[in-house]
Amino acid sequence: MAVGTIDSREEMLSPEELHARLRRVGEERYHHQHPFHLLMHEGKLSRGQLQAWALNRYYYQSNIPVKDAIILSRSDDPEFRRAWRKRVVDHDGNAQQAGGIERWIRLAEATGLTRERVISCNEVLPAVRYAVDAYLSLVRSKTFLEAVASSLTEMFSRDLIALRMDRMRQHYPWLSGGLDYFTARLDQAPEDARFALQWVTEHARTRAEQELSIAALRAKCDILWAQLDAIYFSYVQPGWPPPGAFRIEEK
Amino acid sequence: MAVGTIDSREEMLSPEELHARLRRVGEERYHHQHPFHLLMHEGKLSRGQLQAWALNRYYYQSNIPVKDAIILSRSDDPEFRRAWRKRVVDHDGNAQQAGGIERWIRLAEATGLTRERVISCNEVLPAVRYAVDAYLSLVRSKTFLEAVASSLTEMFSRDLIALRMDRMRQHYPWLSGGLDYFTARLDQAPEDARFALQWVTEHARTRAEQELSIAALRAKCDILWAQLDAIYFSYVQPGWPPPGAFRIEEK
Repeated sequence: MAVGTIDSREEMLSPEELHARLRRVGEERYHHQHPFHLLMHEGKLSRGQLQAWALNRYYYQSNIPVKDAIILSRSDDPEFRRAWRKRVVDHDGNAQQAGGIERWIRLAEATGLTRERVISCNEVLPAVRYAVDAYLSLVRSKTFLEAVASSLTEMFSRDLIALRMDRMRQHYPWLSGGLDYFTARLDQAPEDARFALQWVTEHARTRAEQELSIAALRAKCDILWAQLDAIYFSYVQPGWPPPGAFRIEEK
Repeated sequence: MAVGTIDSREEMLSPEELHARLRRVGEERYHHQHPFHLLMHEGKLSRGQLQAWALNRYYYQSNIPVKDAIILSRSDDPEFRRAWRKRVVDHDGNAQQAGGIERWIRLAEATGLTRERVISCNEVLPAVRYAVDAYLSLVRSKTFLEAVASSLTEMFSRDLIALRMDRMRQHYPWLSGGLDYFTARLDQAPEDARFALQWVTEHARTRAEQELSIAALRAKCDILWAQLDAIYFSYVQPGWPPPGAFRIEEK
């Protein structure tokens, strides 16, 4: 990710300015604007297209706790680790309740896919795999600040999820039984976002570090966007999945 | 990359059988079949679309000697390293002649782009970047045998390059001055492919290793294919480059 050279004498952004810059990245680049989501929310996707989305996005969902475990492993601060490990629990679940991965599988099952087919990841688009792997690579190899800042997309996810749940119930009522994943995220995501935003605000101690944080959020938006581009290309227009990937069943 | 479980008692493939399996991967998955290349060879791409291709593919081209240096760094055999280092020289050049990267820049310049714009990689599609980075990750983290086998796409490149040069001269005569990259590859690629094929044939010593080699070639084909999918999606149909990426200039 190319980042503009920052004059070290340039002034730090105030917390308010930093937050405004981060929010602008979200407005411009978060995937709530992606044409695939627009079609979804207008009720224009077929069951097969929703299957393709659920199956491919499973690769992302199932790697979220891996990503968070990498971040955990890079922190030398027990307090940070205690706060962050919640994310691993949220997605992997515990003895009392299913986690986000299990709930995503149930969503995929509600589209008509079998659990085994989803979990195998055999039919995931290579481009989706590369984008998700790029996310793991980012949190592993960039600075710790950038790794944490890349999670700030959670700042924007609550609104998207609320809209999505509303439109899914309206346009795809047969999917309504599979929406528990989103219900849980309505509370989890804002809590995670608050923590991460406060942490980044406190730990970006130079203007250059603030700019790196903003660039990391942009990079994460690109990763989400690229997944939907690949799904759109393969399953909407022109509709050409690459050799070996999931194909929508002909009716 | 999911690979079918191999029964360890299953018989080794003969060299002829192994080569036939590898060739079949090429027939089914190599990017000579990709719709973007078909349009290119039919003369149906605009100058702007060729610019998008040259600019994006530069990210791949410029990482080839990095990929080969990773492979060099993983070999403990001076004889192998002496043979393989030719690839780094071919792409990086020497005092006597320009290498493949420089020749690719000249091709991009022939499409009307400036050298600086190409080299900066600022406008490369994120999806192209993820695919190329997945290639570096493959040669870094998979077995050495798989790293070498992933280069076997060279087995198929001579035919594609010969066809491309012919069609480019026919359909895009204004590009003819920029084809030196391909001229050089006509001899380099088959020589590289012969060495790698012989090495893989000798060093895949179980059926499971033979299957891993075949899967590595398939994985590399997916990486090439995904780059063209991203270019097609952004610059042909529907023609939606993601935020921040290269945009074709309106005439």
